[in-house]
Amino acid sequence: MARMKAAIFVEPGRIVLDEKPIPEVGPLDALVRITTTTICGTDVHILKGEYPVARGLTVGHEPVGVIERLGSAVRGFTEGQRVIAGAITPSGWSTACLCGCGSQDGAGTRHGFKAMGGWKFGNTIDGCQAEYVLVPDAMANLAPIPDALTDDQVLMCPDIMSTGFGGAEKGQIRIGDVVAVFAQGPIGLCATAGARLMGATTIIAVDRVPARLAMAKRMGADHVVDFSAVDPVEAILRLTDGRGVDVAIEALGTQPTFEAALRVLRPGGTLSSLGVYSTDLTLPLGAFAAGLGDHTIATTLCPGGAERMRRLMAVVASGRVDLGGLVTHHFKLDDIEAAYDLFSHQRDNVLKVAITP
Amino acid sequence: MARMKAAIFVEPGRIVLDEKPIPEVGPLDALVRITTTTICGTDVHILKGEYPVARGLTVGHEPVGVIERLGSAVRGFTEGQRVIAGAITPSGWSTACLCGCGSQDGAGTRHGFKAMGGWKFGNTIDGCQAEYVLVPDAMANLAPIPDALTDDQVLMCPDIMSTGFGGAEKGQIRIGDVVAVFAQGPIGLCATAGARLMGATTIIAVDRVPARLAMAKRMGADHVVDFSAVDPVEAILRLTDGRGVDVAIEALGTQPTFEAALRVLRPGGTLSSLGVYSTDLTLPLGAFAAGLGDHTIATTLCPGGAERMRRLMAVVASGRVDLGGLVTHHFKLDDIEAAYDLFSHQRDNVLKVAITP
Amino acid sequence: MARMKAAIFVEPGRIVLDEKPIPEVGPLDALVRITTTTICGTDVHILKGEYPVARGLTVGHEPVGVIERLGSAVRGFTEGQRVIAGAITPSGWSTACLCGCGSQDGAGTRHGFKAMGGWKFGNTIDGCQAEYVLVPDAMANLAPIPDALTDDQVLMCPDIMSTGFGGAEKGQIRIGDVVAVFAQGPIGLCATAGARLMGATTIIAVDRVPARLAMAKRMGADHVVDFSAVDPVEAILRLTDGRGVDVAIEALGTQPTFEAALRVLRPGGTLSSLGVYSTDLTLPLGAFAAGLGDHTIATTLCPGGAERMRRLMAVVASGRVDLGGLVTHHFKLDDIEAAYDLFSHQRDNVLKVAITP
Amino acid sequence: MARMKAAIFVEPGRIVLDEKPIPEVGPLDALVRITTTTICGTDVHILKGEYPVARGLTVGHEPVGVIERLGSAVRGFTEGQRVIAGAITPSGWSTACLCGCGSQDGAGTRHGFKAMGGWKFGNTIDGCQAEYVLVPDAMANLAPIPDALTDDQVLMCPDIMSTGFGGAEKGQIRIGDVVAVFAQGPIGLCATAGARLMGATTIIAVDRVPARLAMAKRMGADHVVDFSAVDPVEAILRLTDGRGVDVAIEALGTQPTFEAALRVLRPGGTLSSLGVYSTDLTLPLGAFAAGLGDHTIATTLCPGGAERMRRLMAVVASGRVDLGGLVTHHFKLDDIEAAYDLFSHQRDNVLKVAITP
Repeated sequence: MARMKAAIFVEPGRIVLDEKPIPEVGPLDALVRITTTTICGTDVHILKGEYPVARGLTVGHEPVGVIERLGSAVRGFTEGQRVIAGAITPSGWSTACLCGCGSQDGAGTRHGFKAMGGWKFGNTIDGCQAEYVLVPDAMANLAPIPDALTDDQVLMCPDIMSTGFGGAEKGQIRIGDVVAVFAQGPIGLCATAGARLMGATTIIAVDRVPARLAMAKRMGADHVVDFSAVDPVEAILRLTDGRGVDVAIEALGTQPTFEAALRVLRPGGTLSSLGVYSTDLTLPLGAFAAGLGDHTIATTLCPGGAERMRRLMAVVASGRVDLGGLVTHHFKLDDIEAAYDLFSHQRDNVLKVAITP
Repeated sequence: MARMKAAIFVEPGRIVLDEKPIPEVGPLDALVRITTTTICGTDVHILKGEYPVARGLTVGHEPVGVIERLGSAVRGFTEGQRVIAGAITPSGWSTACLCGCGSQDGAGTRHGFKAMGGWKFGNTIDGCQAEYVLVPDAMANLAPIPDALTDDQVLMCPDIMSTGFGGAEKGQIRIGDVVAVFAQGPIGLCATAGARLMGATTIIAVDRVPARLAMAKRMGADHVVDFSAVDPVEAILRLTDGRGVDVAIEALGTQPTFEAALRVLRPGGTLSSLGVYSTDLTLPLGAFAAGLGDHTIATTLCPGGAERMRRLMAVVASGRVDLGGLVTHHFKLDDIEAAYDLFSHQRDNVLKVAITP
Repeated sequence: MARMKAAIFVEPGRIVLDEKPIPEVGPLDALVRITTTTICGTDVHILKGEYPVARGLTVGHEPVGVIERLGSAVRGFTEGQRVIAGAITPSGWSTACLCGCGSQDGAGTRHGFKAMGGWKFGNTIDGCQAEYVLVPDAMANLAPIPDALTDDQVLMCPDIMSTGFGGAEKGQIRIGDVVAVFAQGPIGLCATAGARLMGATTIIAVDRVPARLAMAKRMGADHVVDFSAVDPVEAILRLTDGRGVDVAIEALGTQPTFEAALRVLRPGGTLSSLGVYSTDLTLPLGAFAAGLGDHTIATTLCPGGAERMRRLMAVVASGRVDLGGLVTHHFKLDDIEAAYDLFSHQRDNVLKVAITP
Repeated sequence: MARMKAAIFVEPGRIVLDEKPIPEVGPLDALVRITTTTICGTDVHILKGEYPVARGLTVGHEPVGVIERLGSAVRGFTEGQRVIAGAITPSGWSTACLCGCGSQDGAGTRHGFKAMGGWKFGNTIDGCQAEYVLVPDAMANLAPIPDALTDDQVLMCPDIMSTGFGGAEKGQIRIGDVVAVFAQGPIGLCATAGARLMGATTIIAVDRVPARLAMAKRMGADHVVDFSAVDPVEAILRLTDGRGVDVAIEALGTQPTFEAALRVLRPGGTLSSLGVYSTDLTLPLGAFAAGLGDHTIATTLCPGGAERMRRLMAVVASGRVDLGGLVTHHFKLDDIEAAYDLFSHQRDNVLKVAITP
């Protein structure tokens, strides 16, 4: 049985490059040869043991590659096509999918829903930091890459762009809205770009890293707030003449950012939360207006599926948004342990790393 | 200057019937002679000093009456007409109103928003537990009562029915949804009725008072859960085969009900919160799916305005919902202190009391 | 190769019961043994040659039955389960499905959309007026029947109820709306029931057949208008004090009903169209307010898929809506030609016929 | 009584500059001294007698000016403030306003709706092609101009920009949509800009005037189609690989553009219509998919009100959209007859003319 290299979770603190068999292709699957992939903040949570996965699992959920082999029941694709798949791989046929919530697809069960159930790669099945990845429910998930686009150009689509834009979309941003985005890591930067794309007129980006605030301006922020220098709630209320924002996007996953997002929200506004939290959250009575503020708090797990990927690649192709600057470093798959080291310590102003087998 | 009787907040623990001048009518106002009104749970919060209002303020925000005098700029009404006004009185011209969020009307300022700003009666201006009440922005707020309806029949419209239905509406209940409603006081009962009215197929009502659970069945609940006998989260998960509910409505305002509502929610579901909270709330990490459950939490302040009242009275007139059973006791205005005593202690299975001057 | 009986389109004017092979089961398919099915108005269009299908095709698109055999890639079902499938069978993986418009599924192509593409049974593939039917993309389409429900009780779910309710849903009916439903055939009756289920407060049903108007009252209509006796536009405007309706549902497919639906619509209202038209339509300048009435015209093709079917059966199980009265006649499959004769001539106050192999 | 100059409709073919009294200020009104206004295509319909208004009426509905005097009941503004008001002036208190459809405000009646009822300036009351205009329901309609913006910069807000953006908004354009805009006059150009602002990824603009097609590119069109050179339906289907567009915006008001917009629409897509039609329209059976295409057709009358104007001016201030190029000519009010002559004959590549008293 042919073997391949793969980045494997061994134990908390250790993700190593090792060998495992190239997977068998079931009738609904596609085997994709990875040409480029990347490391996500969630992978770092896995590395640190903060998010549990099975030992021996291949990590990674952002695949760019070429179809190597198609399952016997898969129609509409050809081997050799360049494709991506989303980080979240809805089956298309689950209850969750059929009621429009494919990200919560019940992970292999037909019935009902399971929180995060749609996230399979590098979570419940082998992921794509490897030479090959098996894409489940291939017809619902494979999206051909337009010829004009390079791997690096579409590398943000499977997760970062889909999640970040999702935050703007779930916020239901309208033309003329005032939007604050808390944290300008890759997802926050994409939320900033998404807010711009949907017609927000005043976008306020919050972070403390100068390089990230500078990138936020490139992504469409009108104002940047360095929370290490000023109180971001006060700064945002001052920028909005005390009115607050129509939509606040949380893109980090901590109590301070979640709470600040709530505090700057106008009555009737929406807090769109993208962060992955690791503790209980508190809704302060005043910020929550005792439950009488007509507020909405919405959370989003990265939307996936072939059509989502097609749309995001169309945005890239249109030139509306240039995410090129987000890929700051390149590594070979053989050097993925070094890539983890750089990325997990956020050295050298890293935003995203491209990994090529 | 003519004088009238009014229930006045004196200090925490004391709301007394006293006399004050019948108010002057400004150009946009209407003076309404009250024929029936009622006491709300919020009034009890005021009585207990848990919600602060100015000393000397007339309390009450659920007016049914007759137009006594119209402001000089008011068109479209005639003196002597039977009318109601909502508990929340949007101006129509504020920024909040013009962007569809009239409940958060900036309370007399043109600009922006103010949480609960649309709640004026018995909060920022004199209320309607009195012989007369001055209705601000009368054209936007007065709704003529259809001849066929009695005062008692429309007494729930200004607040209880508008808030309860609002919880079902903000939950965006769809045909076939499974809905849980936590607490079956008057607002929870109306939320149950609203869920039924919008096409929920399985409605689970939670309370512990047998009379309220019995009334919940009359309002449309398919199942009732006595939380003093069983764990409501377990009971609801069992009733839904582990799937959880599409929409959970919180109608009490406490951490246990809020948290239970979140715990029974399926991924992608909506927690529609109606309660008035008096403490910070906690979002438990697991129940909140670490922020990755595609959950929505929406809060609602009672929708007001003439058109809202017209619609609610049309529902009453249609016979679709019979809220008659909610008015369990009648008092004269002269006896309002006794009414407060009964209502605040929830004696004698009281749901709502009708007060007639 | 085993053979089965099937109702086959031979030529305009002739649908006959004949024999054909029981179909082979592909990896994603399920073979269902039909226990009950019915005839739709669309089948009559096919019979009359007004809607073209291939000669030799088995007609019928409303299957109730038992799983006989499952494709090799189908998970989550067992042979012997009682199931229904919708008239429209979205694949789950097409572009149309993945963007929430499964009814327009591209009929076997991965790309894009095709009007009516999701309608396959008795249109582009063999239908279910037969002893067996092959259900494509079985995982996305098979819905188990709750044990407590009979075949007759769920027979309206695959098409009539899904389409009729869809008209109410696409109209975005809200609590307190005034709704007119034009034509009270089976689909119009279900639209009436759907409007009631969503909280419409005044429902006006239009037809001319006394038995249908009587059934409309049972389905929830508050008023019925016999258009053979009065001008329905005038009657509806009179019933609404000249205001017009919030939502008008067209359930026949003719210029007069479409136009009347537009004429009774208030500015800002929605015309929800369910009819299958056979001619160009005219939008009269005045009724269309010269394009300045903030009107919406929405058309709906029957929503399908397993989750839709599950929800509709839940509505039936809840007892909210009793469609039992719609099945007015029963026939054996062997007598299907007689059933077509009765149904296509609308004799004997027929609404729907149940066909049992 | 002081007098002012005003452009008055005399009879079909004649709008002349004449004198009439400066109007009296009622309690809810504001008198605004016009500093800049413009001529709309609708005014040309009035001039030609195609749209009937009362003889002697002052025409014009796009006011930019300074508050001269405030009604006795108006709060929140000061005399001397620079303001605009929308072409459509919702009262704030009508039924239409209170249910979120202020453009259809019942024109001075409290009850119900009236198509185009919210359009009062130069339609049912004196307009603003004059030295002064009386703004009704001033609190709901006056919007202060940010200091940094010139009259010319906000001149498109009252109608052109609000209507054009409204077409994009009513189309519910989403990130990644393909949008076609038929006709690139001022409103079509703003629809193009609005589609861009909302995240459409491929925008196809149709016209035949080279200067307009060039301006369409500046407003955000990715492709332009000259319908005098090619069949626009074929061209658009070719550009979209046969898939059709997600949203088609009609911005002219003719059968050919309306029909072409329908023909290029994918199943499930939305035709957003902005045109003012002058004849009955035909929905061709095939283009309308016999009523089974899940299509939506939505019409929009210019959204008005102070908050709308505030938002549009915020868009201008943000620099997101530069409509400067739309004002191609300047005239003194004294020369307004010459301005009408130029504009109505569309000479000299005129797009919009600024008129200054």
